[in-house]
Amino acid sequence: MNAQVLPRPAPDIIATVRAKLVERLGTRVSVSQAVLDQHSHGEGLPVVGMPDLVVFPEANEEVAFVLALCNEHRVAVTPFGAGSSLEGQLAALAGGVSLDMGRFDKILDVSPDSLDCRVQAGVTREALNAHIRDTGLFFPVDPGANASIGGMASTRASGTNAVRYGTMRENILGLTVVTPDGRIVRTGSRARKSSAGLDLTHLYVGSEGTLGVITEIQLKLYGLPETIVAAVCQFESLEGAVVAVVTALQANLKLARVELLDEVQMRAAINYSKLDYAETPTLFLEFQGTPNSVREDVETMQTITEERSGGAFQFAERPEDRNRLWKARHNSYQAVMALSPGKKNMGTDACVPISALPACLLETKADIVASGLTAPIVGHVGDGNFHLGILFDPKDADETARAEGLAFRTARRAIAMGGTCSGEHGVGLHKIVHMEAEHGEGVALMKAVKTALDPSGIMNPGKVYP
Amino acid sequence: MNAQVLPRPAPDIIATVRAKLVERLGTRVSVSQAVLDQHSHGEGLPVVGMPDLVVFPEANEEVAFVLALCNEHRVAVTPFGAGSSLEGQLAALAGGVSLDMGRFDKILDVSPDSLDCRVQAGVTREALNAHIRDTGLFFPVDPGANASIGGMASTRASGTNAVRYGTMRENILGLTVVTPDGRIVRTGSRARKSSAGLDLTHLYVGSEGTLGVITEIQLKLYGLPETIVAAVCQFESLEGAVVAVVTALQANLKLARVELLDEVQMRAAINYSKLDYAETPTLFLEFQGTPNSVREDVETMQTITEERSGGAFQFAERPEDRNRLWKARHNSYQAVMALSPGKKNMGTDACVPISALPACLLETKADIVASGLTAPIVGHVGDGNFHLGILFDPKDADETARAEGLAFRTARRAIAMGGTCSGEHGVGLHKIVHMEAEHGEGVALMKAVKTALDPSGIMNPGKVYP
Repeated sequence: MNAQVLPRPAPDIIATVRAKLVERLGTRVSVSQAVLDQHSHGEGLPVVGMPDLVVFPEANEEVAFVLALCNEHRVAVTPFGAGSSLEGQLAALAGGVSLDMGRFDKILDVSPDSLDCRVQAGVTREALNAHIRDTGLFFPVDPGANASIGGMASTRASGTNAVRYGTMRENILGLTVVTPDGRIVRTGSRARKSSAGLDLTHLYVGSEGTLGVITEIQLKLYGLPETIVAAVCQFESLEGAVVAVVTALQANLKLARVELLDEVQMRAAINYSKLDYAETPTLFLEFQGTPNSVREDVETMQTITEERSGGAFQFAERPEDRNRLWKARHNSYQAVMALSPGKKNMGTDACVPISALPACLLETKADIVASGLTAPIVGHVGDGNFHLGILFDPKDADETARAEGLAFRTARRAIAMGGTCSGEHGVGLHKIVHMEAEHGEGVALMKAVKTALDPSGIMNPGKVYP
Repeated sequence: MNAQVLPRPAPDIIATVRAKLVERLGTRVSVSQAVLDQHSHGEGLPVVGMPDLVVFPEANEEVAFVLALCNEHRVAVTPFGAGSSLEGQLAALAGGVSLDMGRFDKILDVSPDSLDCRVQAGVTREALNAHIRDTGLFFPVDPGANASIGGMASTRASGTNAVRYGTMRENILGLTVVTPDGRIVRTGSRARKSSAGLDLTHLYVGSEGTLGVITEIQLKLYGLPETIVAAVCQFESLEGAVVAVVTALQANLKLARVELLDEVQMRAAINYSKLDYAETPTLFLEFQGTPNSVREDVETMQTITEERSGGAFQFAERPEDRNRLWKARHNSYQAVMALSPGKKNMGTDACVPISALPACLLETKADIVASGLTAPIVGHVGDGNFHLGILFDPKDADETARAEGLAFRTARRAIAMGGTCSGEHGVGLHKIVHMEAEHGEGVALMKAVKTALDPSGIMNPGKVYP
C-alpha cells in the first residue's frame, strides 16, 4: 500500500472538527461504526481505510464549509459516491472525513433542445436515465455498476457504449468543483466547444477526488436511436473474435457496443445468468441507427465475422431480450465471483491501441494459462480495453503472489505496447505502481498541479500519485 | 493591451542568450529585421510585439535547450507555428525569443491499423492529409487556414468538420511537451481512452503556449467516407436557416458539416469566389457515409429545411465542385476583407448551446444593424459557433469604438447565454477582457496551474490570463 502523505489527525483535532461540523450539519455527521465501515472501502480488492467521520452534505456551500474546515485543520477528505469504484479510491488512508455525496441527488436541469443536462454529483446513471426517459433522450456512458455521475466523472469512467459515444471525458461540458480551501468554481460552459483558457473541466475529470470535490456535472445527452439490434457471435478462437473487431473498426463500421468474453468468462456468464450459448470466445454486439443503416451495418459485420470463422449471429431485437443480454454482460463481475466462492477478484484494466489488441490479448491469455490461475477475460474491445478477473485466495501466499505477478505483467504489457494500465477504473491505490512506467516525467507535472491546487494535501491522500 | 507580465530583457541579457543559442544552433538563430517582423504578429488585428531573436529548433532537445536557457535568464519565449492565429497569440509582448516550430515538419509515424499517427508540431494539416492520402485515411479537423498541427493543438482549434468529428480536444491522444525548465515529457498514450492520472494532454491542449511548448502530437485518424455529398440550401430568413440546423441536430441527424453564411457574407463570397447563388442566408452542408445512409440523411434534411422555407438543395457531388464550394467557405475571411479594401477585420468567436443559437444570432444581427457597421456572419452552426467579421477603419476613432462595442457585446451575449467568448480561436490578447466574466473564480485556478508549471512566467507572457 502507498505511504500516507498526510498523518492521521490527532483525536483532539477530530473532536474540534467534529464539533464544528455537527454545529452546521447536525445529524448529517456520523461516527456510527456501521457507517464508518461502509465508507472505508469500495468494491474490488479489500483495501480498508477507516474514516474518523462520515459527512453527508446537501449543498455546494456545505461542501465548501467542510473542505475549508478540514483544510484549516489538515484533516483528510475522501469523496464518496455510490461506493462502486474498484481501485481502492474510497479507502480513507489518513482517516479524516469521508464525504458522502449521496444527498447530491438532484437533476438540476434538462434541456432536450440543447441535448444537455446538469446533475448533482450523487445522481446515479440509472436515476438520470429514468428521469429523462420521456424526453426521448439518454445518457450513454454505462460502466455496468449503477455508479454516481460524480464518481464516474472523477474516475473518467466509460464502459460498453464508449466505442460509439466516448467516455466521461467526451461527455462532460462543465463542472462545479469545490476547492480544498472552500471556493465554489464553475468550469467549462454549456457550449459544445470552447477555446477560452485552460481546460479545467478535463483537469478535474479523472482526478479521483485529489484536487477538490466535483459537485455538479453538465452532461451531453443523445437522442434514443430509432433502431437497436443486439447480436451474439461465437468464435472458435479468441484471435478470430479480436481480429474481426479490429477489422470492423478499421473499415469505419459504426458499432454501438462490441464486447468480448473469452471462453472462461462465457462459462461464468452461462452459469450465473442461465444463458444458452456455447463456452467459446464470444462477441456481444449492438448496432444503432435507422432501420436501413442498422441493416447495412449488421450485414457488413456478418461478412467480417464469417471471414474469421465467427458463427451465425444470434439476434436479440426485443428490448427484454437485449436487456437480458446486457444484464448478463454487466453481471460479469458477479459471475466470475460465483466461479470460485471464497476467492477474491484482482481486476486489471489494460487498454492498448487497436492494432496491438490481438497480440496483447493472446500474450495475456498465454500468461494466464502459464500462471495456473483462473482469470476470465472480458473486454470493451472496440476501445482496445479489456479486463482480467484474476481469482485468488488471499490466504494462499503463493496464489496471491502469482495473481499479483499476472496483474503486474498485464499492465506493463499494455504500457509497453503504447497503451495504459487503466482504461477506465482509475489509478486509486492499485495502479500507482505503474504510474512512473506509464508517464515518466509526466508524474512530476501531475504532482506540481496537485500541489498547486491542494497545497495542504488533504484531498484523498495516498491515491493516484506515486 | 494586457500588461506585460515579464519585462523586456536588457540588451546584455539578450546578447548572452543569443551567443549561447548561436553556439548550439548556428544560423538557426536570426536577428534579421524581416524575420523579426514576420514573427511579431499573427493574422487578425494588427497587434505587434517584436521579438529580440527568432530561433528555429529542429529537435526536442534543442527546444529543451532554448527553454532552459531562457528560463535561467528570464527571457520570454513565444511559440510560433504557421503564423495563422487570430487573437494576437504570436505577438512577443515581452520581446525575447520567438520559437519558430516550422522545422518540426516530420510525420513520425502513421498507423492505418490503429487509425492514428504521430506528427511534429510544425506539420500543417494539408501536409498531413497529403502524406496519408494513399492510406485511405484522413485527419478531419479543418480550421480553414493551413495551420500547423501544433498551433491547432495549442489553440484547441476546430472548424467546419467539428460537428461530426470533434475539435482538436477530441482528436489528440497524447503529446510531447517541453517544459519551461527544459524537461521533455510525453503525455497520454496511444490508447483510445485512459483513466491513469491527471489529464496532462488536455491541460496542454488549448494552453496557447503558456505552459510549455508542444513538439509532437499523437492524432486520431479516420477512414475516408465511402460517399460524400455537399449541398447548398438558401433561405429567406436567417431564423429559418438556424432553426433548420437546430431541428436537424435535435433529430439526431448526422451532418458532417453545416455552415451558415448570412446574406452579407454571401455577397462577399459571391463576389470574391464567383459563386452563382442568391444573396440570402445560406447553409453549406455536407453528408458522409454509405450511399444509402447519405441518401437517407439528405432526404431527412430536405424535409427539415423545406419546413423552414429553405430552397431546393443545390448539390455538389463531384470532388472538384465540392472543393470549390468549401474553398469559397474557407476564403470567407479574404472575401470579407475584399468588401471594403483598407478596412481591418475585428473577428468574434461566440459559441452557445444549440438551443440558444437562434436567439443569439438574431439579437447579434439586430446589434450589427444598429451599429451601422458592416459585419458579415459565418458560423459552424452545428456547434453553436459563429463569427462576425466586423469591418472598421482603425484611423476612424468612432468606427473603431463602435466595432469594439459590437465585438464586446457579442462575446458577453454568448457568455450570458451559457456559452463562451471563444469557440475555437483561443484567448490570446483580444479575449482576455472576457475571462473573468466567463470563468469567475476559475481564472484563479488557471493562474495557479500556470504558476505551478511556468514559475518564471517566461512562456508567452501577457496572453490568456487576465
